[in-house]
Amino acid sequence: MTQLQINEVAPRDGFQSEASFIPTADKIRLIDALSVTGLARIETTSFVSPKAIPHLRDAAEVVTGIQRRTDVGITVLVPNVKGAERALAGGIDEVNLVMSASDSHGLANLRMTPTQSLEQFAAIIEAVRDHPQGRAVFINASLSTSFGCPFEGEVPQARVFELIEHQLALGVQGVTLCDTTGMANPAQVARLCEAAQSRFPDTPFTLHFHNTRGMGLANALAAWQTGITRFDASLGGLGGCPFAPGATGNVCTEDLVHMFEQMGVATGVDLDALLAASAILPDLVGHETPGQVVKAGKADRQYPIPSR
Amino acid sequence: MTQLQINEVAPRDGFQSEASFIPTADKIRLIDALSVTGLARIETTSFVSPKAIPHLRDAAEVVTGIQRRTDVGITVLVPNVKGAERALAGGIDEVNLVMSASDSHGLANLRMTPTQSLEQFAAIIEAVRDHPQGRAVFINASLSTSFGCPFEGEVPQARVFELIEHQLALGVQGVTLCDTTGMANPAQVARLCEAAQSRFPDTPFTLHFHNTRGMGLANALAAWQTGITRFDASLGGLGGCPFAPGATGNVCTEDLVHMFEQMGVATGVDLDALLAASAILPDLVGHETPGQVVKAGKADRQYPIPSR
Repeated sequence: MTQLQINEVAPRDGFQSEASFIPTADKIRLIDALSVTGLARIETTSFVSPKAIPHLRDAAEVVTGIQRRTDVGITVLVPNVKGAERALAGGIDEVNLVMSASDSHGLANLRMTPTQSLEQFAAIIEAVRDHPQGRAVFINASLSTSFGCPFEGEVPQARVFELIEHQLALGVQGVTLCDTTGMANPAQVARLCEAAQSRFPDTPFTLHFHNTRGMGLANALAAWQTGITRFDASLGGLGGCPFAPGATGNVCTEDLVHMFEQMGVATGVDLDALLAASAILPDLVGHETPGQVVKAGKADRQYPIPSR
Repeated sequence: MTQLQINEVAPRDGFQSEASFIPTADKIRLIDALSVTGLARIETTSFVSPKAIPHLRDAAEVVTGIQRRTDVGITVLVPNVKGAERALAGGIDEVNLVMSASDSHGLANLRMTPTQSLEQFAAIIEAVRDHPQGRAVFINASLSTSFGCPFEGEVPQARVFELIEHQLALGVQGVTLCDTTGMANPAQVARLCEAAQSRFPDTPFTLHFHNTRGMGLANALAAWQTGITRFDASLGGLGGCPFAPGATGNVCTEDLVHMFEQMGVATGVDLDALLAASAILPDLVGHETPGQVVKAGKADRQYPIPSR
């Protein structure tokens, strides 16, 4: 059975949503702890404008400050050519380019329509490939609102596939289908994952779920049942869903790893080490996290028999 | 496609776990509101000793106080012959008998080993069938720790099936497989559900999940994929898990209904009416509930595009 590949997104997707700036040294310490757990990749930061996302203004210090290991890929979000050049100067393994599948979400979140994003992608990919350190860098694209848009509702599969076609033509090597606001359900996930793998058999697809309506793990299960082995997940379930107030964030890494390991599906991740890293999050971010296994313990936890 | 049958357990499994007694009139009002949502059954209360569970001391008043409807079954937990006689006097459609699959959980929770519980079952079933109002009553048995015991760990499938054999021989008509402390994973659920339906093809099985480790909906999905159509669930996700402090309770009714309805699986339930009933729970129980759809809204909720 193919081992899963987990891409940890808390340092980027999680920390940018927090109320407070997480000190750079704390970020580095957490990423270093995560690096030895067996995660395939860590989305370490975003080389976005410090004005746009002040919480990630320390992107360069984080990337150059962490301990690098050959067995964990360092991926970073890059929104534009300038960000790509800053990222490449830091030395990274993968860049993640983000765009929306729907116009209104693209404009609200990125100030770009999908068409404008694709133009941006072309410029970024050219800059990466022209850079002396950029030839070995893997280029991934995350497609927000692939399972629905919080403003427009349904996003047709034909639209998603048309955008993926454009991405691949530009040189994108892997695609992340994002359920940005937790709208996906398992039947829809199975349909889109099956169709995407059938239409683009050479493209590695990653699935990015939010647990907004409690379906995060059910959706991951449905995706895995179609052959998907790459998942984004966020330690502790950190991460925001700005359009669904009160809702939880990304699917929780340790809960996802726990489910698959309990099922006998190898994740390559040391769950105890991951849980230890998650346990320090409340101190780091100043609030409880939505992760459940870190509170309840693993399913094989045994309790002493209560005395009468 | 067969329509699901949802058995709402919050009035029993939920309210008995709350810190405070829910006033009888509030219970009746909630059950009456739930009765018109399309739920197949409501586990209304438990005819347990008021000393054992003071929060359900009003069992008789609740059962006789609610508005009865022909399209919703009123089921009650009965722990012994006395409870069964009190329940029958109130007029109910179904009795639910509870036992554990593991000795230590049975002794800790019910003060009875499974063998002792089966003796109790025999006496209760005889009392029900001998009662003038008892002939039409459906007899269900809930088998706790079917997916693992918090004290003993794994519970072998052979043990579960041996106990079900005994139950059916005594006159039990339906069996609920309970993941009492949220230990089950989707692969295990699929295995046990497939094997149980194959071994006991004439027995309606209900699945009872807890969301202790976040897998509640994933487990329900896995069960449904094997042909299971009957689920216990608790409004708001109320319900305790006394052996997993800090963990959430039963799988949440409205989140379960929402997932299946989004998938195109008919539940027969009016989700909006269910969400309205769930929205009053925090006032009733004095705390937030774990349910997520009641906070985030349904997946097809559309938001206004943010102004720049």
